Amino acid sequence: MNMIVPVILSGGSGTRLWPVSTGTAPKQFQPLTGKGSMFLQTLERAADRGRFAPPLVVCGPAHVAHVEADLAAAGIADARIIIEPAARNTAPAIALAARVALADDPAATILVMPADHVMTDVPAFLAAIEAALPATDAGALATFGIAPSHPETGYGYIAMGDPLLGAPGVYRVRRFVEKPPRDRAEAMLAEGGHYWNAGIFLMRADRFLTELERQQPAMASSCATAVAKSREDGARCHPDAEAFLASPSNSVDYAVMEGAEQVVVAPVDPGWSDVGGWAALHELGDKDESKNVRLGDVIAIDARGNYLHAATGKRVAVVGVSDLIVVAHGDDILVIPKDRAQEVKAIVEYLAANPPPTA
Amino acid sequence: MNMIVPVILSGGSGTRLWPVSTGTAPKQFQPLTGKGSMFLQTLERAADRGRFAPPLVVCGPAHVAHVEADLAAAGIADARIIIEPAARNTAPAIALAARVALADDPAATILVMPADHVMTDVPAFLAAIEAALPATDAGALATFGIAPSHPETGYGYIAMGDPLLGAPGVYRVRRFVEKPPRDRAEAMLAEGGHYWNAGIFLMRADRFLTELERQQPAMASSCATAVAKSREDGARCHPDAEAFLASPSNSVDYAVMEGAEQVVVAPVDPGWSDVGGWAALHELGDKDESKNVRLGDVIAIDARGNYLHAATGKRVAVVGVSDLIVVAHGDDILVIPKDRAQEVKAIVEYLAANPPPTA
Repeated sequence: MNMIVPVILSGGSGTRLWPVSTGTAPKQFQPLTGKGSMFLQTLERAADRGRFAPPLVVCGPAHVAHVEADLAAAGIADARIIIEPAARNTAPAIALAARVALADDPAATILVMPADHVMTDVPAFLAAIEAALPATDAGALATFGIAPSHPETGYGYIAMGDPLLGAPGVYRVRRFVEKPPRDRAEAMLAEGGHYWNAGIFLMRADRFLTELERQQPAMASSCATAVAKSREDGARCHPDAEAFLASPSNSVDYAVMEGAEQVVVAPVDPGWSDVGGWAALHELGDKDESKNVRLGDVIAIDARGNYLHAATGKRVAVVGVSDLIVVAHGDDILVIPKDRAQEVKAIVEYLAANPPPTA
Repeated sequence: MNMIVPVILSGGSGTRLWPVSTGTAPKQFQPLTGKGSMFLQTLERAADRGRFAPPLVVCGPAHVAHVEADLAAAGIADARIIIEPAARNTAPAIALAARVALADDPAATILVMPADHVMTDVPAFLAAIEAALPATDAGALATFGIAPSHPETGYGYIAMGDPLLGAPGVYRVRRFVEKPPRDRAEAMLAEGGHYWNAGIFLMRADRFLTELERQQPAMASSCATAVAKSREDGARCHPDAEAFLASPSNSVDYAVMEGAEQVVVAPVDPGWSDVGGWAALHELGDKDESKNVRLGDVIAIDARGNYLHAATGKRVAVVGVSDLIVVAHGDDILVIPKDRAQEVKAIVEYLAANPPPTA
């Protein structure tokens, strides 16, 4: 039995969790769900060395220190870190990791996981991986489909097809649906057989690269050259910048999955969240008797349904408010209604357009 | 023409403006209205040395440093600071100042002003003082009545009587009304002839002390002894602690004014506010086109009617909220609806009952 190589994509910037998550310290490195950082939680999902090879982490230069600190905190000494010279979205990131994995093991199977997701039922996820393995061994590219709980318009969907023979719990993919408008999302929820695309993939590295070469020859070639000319520095792998920068930028869904042959989906309910905003953290968090989530030094009087987050050394005191997000982190204080929490992006955009004067 | 001696009572603790105003740094020393501290504004109201003698400040030991810093900032070198060994409410505080003033000038007239009020029309106030002087020269104790703008239940009221002969703009006081219930406040507003008691008084020091001796002999005696045995230390005057601590504690309204002879009222509209809470600061502040008051580094997107206050070095960012108070000061963040701003007291009480562990 070959080991599965965890590929952890840590390229996100998580601006929807400002002010805690920022470009230099994005959400995957923050202990936002109270059980270590999401990056650490992702590592731990694939920590069983009886099943998983040492992980490959793909990240940008700005986040190497965070990655190394978290790896050290987790006691993981055998990971490798692939440092992207620049962000080129997920398809080139996975291409780099697939090339590195293939160099170690021509039969390598990779498990691609974004570093900023939460799962509350890891055994369910691991079981879905086992279910998908016969299909991926046979060359399939496996996606994991999350049963939708509401008509979310922020995710892509996967339309499930027929069961795959010889792989119980695995289905052909009828089609991918890009982030839908509200009415389409509602129709899919009502119809059934549609799953959220969690951006988690299991596949043989060689099969991914074959699909990439067929559909995205320029990207495949750039990434192959970048790895061939890479520079090693201990656990750090630096792909060649000139070659990598020549690659087109695209997501793995658009660049590969939507046009690939042999794509399958394993439906799974692992208590998944991509922690896509402060409202998600209210949903995930432990609540008091008034449905408030309280993190840190918080005083809440006659307050209901709030997410109240005081970083170390700060104190948040509220009276008589409902369904608010209040976050105090560093010198920043955010106050926004829970049902408008996605609009924190407006603040991030304002700050980008109005940088503070440099002294 | 005798000079009027400003007596500035700076004993308040201003807990309704937590977290900016605290016991050690109460509201009168904070630049809350954007034009210097309220203590400084009070000094400046009586800064004309053609009319006013150097001020007497009455404060507690914890606030002497604040007082001296503000006096220095205002360039006032001739003030005297009477340091109360303990808080005994306003009647003994005024008694100390009246004794000190009388020792300098047997004909002294004192103008008693709380240090934590705001006036936007100082000339109107000064004109009311001039109007009251003939009456106070003749022995009256003058109050200043603020025309009520709403049926406030947090202030005492003064019922105006007949005009005083020979003193245009000055009226006899029919009676004092303690903080009324809502229906009584509404009735007084509808009836007219009732004014808010602003706690500002003009009177000859000897007349005040005569009334005090008649109505509160123990208090009068304790305060007289405390001043007779006081210790001078530059501008600081330390009344004798043992004598002062023997004094009963009471407000000047209850102890003297309600039972005094020759009490008059000068109605005045000086744009007065006692800044009794955060909602008052929203009323007083300059507002943007969406009726937000913004102090400091504030980002407000689609937000209306809020009071947003970021202390130096902090940044407050709000989206989609209305009629909220958001204050970031030190390590504390307060969020409370504007119409419940008085309930900040619940936080102060909670903190008093649950002090942080000392390291």
